[in-house]
Amino acid sequence: MSSAVDLIVKKRGGGELTRAEIQTLVAGLLSGSVADYQMSAFLMATFFRGMTDAETVALTQAMLNSGRVLKLASVKKPKIDKHSTGGVGDKISVCLAPLVAACGVAVPMVSGRGLGHTGGTLDKLEAIPGFSVDLSARRFEHVVRTVGTSMIGQTAEIAPADRRIYALRDVTGTVECIPLIVASILSKKLAEGIDGLVLDVKAGRGAFMKDRKAAESLARALVSVGQRAGKRVVALVTDMSAPIGLTIGNALETREAIAVLQDGGPADTRELTLALGVEMLLLAGVTRSPQQAEARLKQALSSGAGFECFLRLVKAQGGDVRSVEHPERLPQAKAKVAVRAAKAGRVLAIDPLELGLAAVALGAGRSRTDQRVDPAAGIEIAAACGTRVARGEPLAWLHAKTTALAQAELARVERAFTLGSGSFRAKPRVLSRITGAPKVR
Amino acid sequence: MSSAVDLIVKKRGGGELTRAEIQTLVAGLLSGSVADYQMSAFLMATFFRGMTDAETVALTQAMLNSGRVLKLASVKKPKIDKHSTGGVGDKISVCLAPLVAACGVAVPMVSGRGLGHTGGTLDKLEAIPGFSVDLSARRFEHVVRTVGTSMIGQTAEIAPADRRIYALRDVTGTVECIPLIVASILSKKLAEGIDGLVLDVKAGRGAFMKDRKAAESLARALVSVGQRAGKRVVALVTDMSAPIGLTIGNALETREAIAVLQDGGPADTRELTLALGVEMLLLAGVTRSPQQAEARLKQALSSGAGFECFLRLVKAQGGDVRSVEHPERLPQAKAKVAVRAAKAGRVLAIDPLELGLAAVALGAGRSRTDQRVDPAAGIEIAAACGTRVARGEPLAWLHAKTTALAQAELARVERAFTLGSGSFRAKPRVLSRITGAPKVR
Repeated sequence: MSSAVDLIVKKRGGGELTRAEIQTLVAGLLSGSVADYQMSAFLMATFFRGMTDAETVALTQAMLNSGRVLKLASVKKPKIDKHSTGGVGDKISVCLAPLVAACGVAVPMVSGRGLGHTGGTLDKLEAIPGFSVDLSARRFEHVVRTVGTSMIGQTAEIAPADRRIYALRDVTGTVECIPLIVASILSKKLAEGIDGLVLDVKAGRGAFMKDRKAAESLARALVSVGQRAGKRVVALVTDMSAPIGLTIGNALETREAIAVLQDGGPADTRELTLALGVEMLLLAGVTRSPQQAEARLKQALSSGAGFECFLRLVKAQGGDVRSVEHPERLPQAKAKVAVRAAKAGRVLAIDPLELGLAAVALGAGRSRTDQRVDPAAGIEIAAACGTRVARGEPLAWLHAKTTALAQAELARVERAFTLGSGSFRAKPRVLSRITGAPKVR
Repeated sequence: MSSAVDLIVKKRGGGELTRAEIQTLVAGLLSGSVADYQMSAFLMATFFRGMTDAETVALTQAMLNSGRVLKLASVKKPKIDKHSTGGVGDKISVCLAPLVAACGVAVPMVSGRGLGHTGGTLDKLEAIPGFSVDLSARRFEHVVRTVGTSMIGQTAEIAPADRRIYALRDVTGTVECIPLIVASILSKKLAEGIDGLVLDVKAGRGAFMKDRKAAESLARALVSVGQRAGKRVVALVTDMSAPIGLTIGNALETREAIAVLQDGGPADTRELTLALGVEMLLLAGVTRSPQQAEARLKQALSSGAGFECFLRLVKAQGGDVRSVEHPERLPQAKAKVAVRAAKAGRVLAIDPLELGLAAVALGAGRSRTDQRVDPAAGIEIAAACGTRVARGEPLAWLHAKTTALAQAELARVERAFTLGSGSFRAKPRVLSRITGAPKVR
C-alpha cells in the first residue's frame, strides 16, 4: 500500500488517484496514520491539480462512508432533498420542504447553520419557539414517514471525515476548490438516504461563487459527481446579486416563508420556491412535465396543503404551532429603526453581501461558529429593487435588541441601496439549469 | 498583521510575500501560532508557485536567524566553506578542507550525515577512531583559528526553523522545490559565519538532481540567493553519473581522501578536489588566477602541507593520528567478497545509485536517520570505467561484517557494471561553473 507521501506526490504531479488510494487518505486521517499536515499538503496539491470526476466520486464516498448513512427504509415515497450553496435572505428550504412533501415527495433534509454573511436553515427554524433540530436518526425517519418531511442538523455521526477535512481547509487556504466543495456537499447529502437531490447553486455578490461562470462549473461538477454516485441530481444556477425576498434574519425570514405557504410572499421568493419544487417533483417522478409539477405546487399553495404540512412538521419537532398560525407571535425585536432614503430615486440595486454582513452585526448571524444568534434580529427591506422612493422614505427597517445596535448599521445599510434615475428591469432568479451529460448506453 | 491563512492564499494566488510576511510564517511555526498543517499547505503552494529571489533570501534569513549564528570573530583569515548537494563516493570535503586550509584559507565546515544512497562527511570522519564531530561553538572557533579548519555536525542551536520545515517537507511531498532547497542549504551554511561559499551541485543518476539542466537551475538559484544574502558564492555543476573515485563507504573513502592528501588518489577525486579548491582560493582572494590557485594547491599536496593540516585537525578533534598516518589501521571489514565479471569486456558505465544503495545494505549507510553505520563496510571498485576485464576478474570488492551480508549484494553490484565492447572516453567531472549575474552598479 502506498504511503501518504507517495499519494501526495502523485497528486502533486497531476496523477489520478485510485478509489483505494483516496480511501487510504480519508480513512488514514481519521485513524491517525495520515497526519493533518499531510492532508493539508494533499488538499493544496488538489487545489492546483484538480480531481477527475472519478476521484471526486471516490472522495465523496470515502467521506460519506466515514460515518453513519441513513437508509430510511420505512419511507416508501421517493426521497428528494434540496441543497443551496448559501445566500442572503435564502429562506427557500423552510417553505419548499413542506410544500413538496404536500405533493407526495418525501423530503429528508439535513441542514446547516448560518456563518458569515450567509444564513442557515436551522437558525430560521429555531426562531419558532420550541422547534428542535436535534432528532435521533430513528425520530427523523419517523417524522419523514408520517409528516413527509423532517429538517434536522448534521450530527456528529454523519460524515466525520468531511468535518475534519473542512476544518483543515478553512485554515489552510484550500476552501475554493471545486472537487473539494463537491465532495463536502455531496458526502453530507448522500448520508441522508435520498434518491435524488436538487441543487441551488448561487451566483453573485451575495454568494460563494461571485460569477455565473464559476457557479455553472460548480453546478456541472455537482451534477456529474452526484449522478456518478448513483443519485438523480439536477442543479439550478440562481442569481444572488440581490437579497432574496424582503427579509434577512431568522424570525423575519420564517414569517416570509409562512407567507409563501399561505399563497403570498414576495415574487422572487415564490419564483425560487416553485422552480426548485418543480425540479424536486420531476426527480421524484410524481409528475411528468414541468407544467404539471408547477400546477401541482400552486394547488398545494392555494389549497393550504403545503401550510398544513408545515404545521404538522412544526408540531412533530416540538415547535409552537400557534406562532406559525399567528406569525406576529414569532420573536419580535425590541428596537426597529428605519433606514431612510437620503434622496429621491429608484432603487436600482441592493448589495446582498453588505446586507448580509449588517444582519450578522445586528445579531441575526455569526462570524464564528460558537456564537449565538438573536432570532428576532435582521433587516426588513421596505423598498425592493425597482421601487421609487421619495427623500426620507424608508428603504429598510433594522431589527435588533437595542436601538444603539441598529443605529450602528444605519450607514452600511443605506450604502447598500443604489438609488438612481435609470430604469429597472427585474431579472429572473433562475439563470440556468444543469442536468448533466446524457448517459451513454 | 496577516494571518497564516491570508499568507497561504497570497502564495496560492502567485503573490510575492514580503520579508515581514515570511518572517511571520517562520517565527510563527516555532512559536506555535502557525500550525504544521498551515506550513505544509504553504510549502505545497510554494511548490506550485515558486518564490522570487527576494522571497528566498527572506526565507533563508528567517531560518538562519531562528537559531545561533556563529561570528568566528577571532578568525582573521577569509572564511570559505564548500557544500555538496550529495553524491556517491563523495569524500571530497575530507581532503579539500585541510588542503585549502593549508593554503591560508579558514574553512569552518558544518556537515551532515549520510541518508539513503548518498554518504555524509561526518560518517567518514568518524571512521577515524576517536574523531569527535560534536564540538562546542567555542571549541569549533578555536580549532578553525589554530588548525585552519574544523569539521563538525549541525547542532540543535543552528537554524532550528530549517529542521522543523525540512522534517515537514520530508513527509508532505515538498522536498523537490528549488527555493525551499536553496533556503535550507544556505540557512545552515550562513550560520557558520563564513564570507564565501563554493557549491558543488551534483547532476546525474547518483544525485538528487538527475539531469544537468535541473542541477544548473538549482546552482543558479543558490548563487543568486547567496549573493543577495551578502556572501561571495560560486557553484560548480559536477557529474554524478558514476561513483566518485574508487571507494564507497566511510573508512574506505577516508583512506582515499588520505591518498589524495598524500599526492595520490584516483584522477577524478583529485580533479574535483582541485577544481573546488581553486574556487575556494579565488573566493578567499588568496590567489589572483585559477592557474595560481591550482599551482598553490598542488604544491600543498606535493609538500605534504595539506596532509599535515589534516593530521592537526584529527588531533584537535580527538582522532587517532596513527590511523591516519597508517591508514591500514582504519577499521577493516571482516568479510571481503569479490564481485567478478561474468564475461570479458570493457567497463562502460557504473551505476552510482545502485552502488550507493548496495553500500547502505552492506552497512555503510542509513535508510533511516536513527540507524548506526558500520565504518568498515562499503565497496571498493576494482575495475573503474574504461578498464578492460577478463571473465572472472574482480569488478569490485564488497566489505561487510559477514560474508552473508556481502553475498546478498553480489548480484546488485554486478548489475551496476555495464560491460561491453564499445570504446570509452572519460568525461570531465566539472560540467559548468555558475558565478551569478554581474552586479548592476
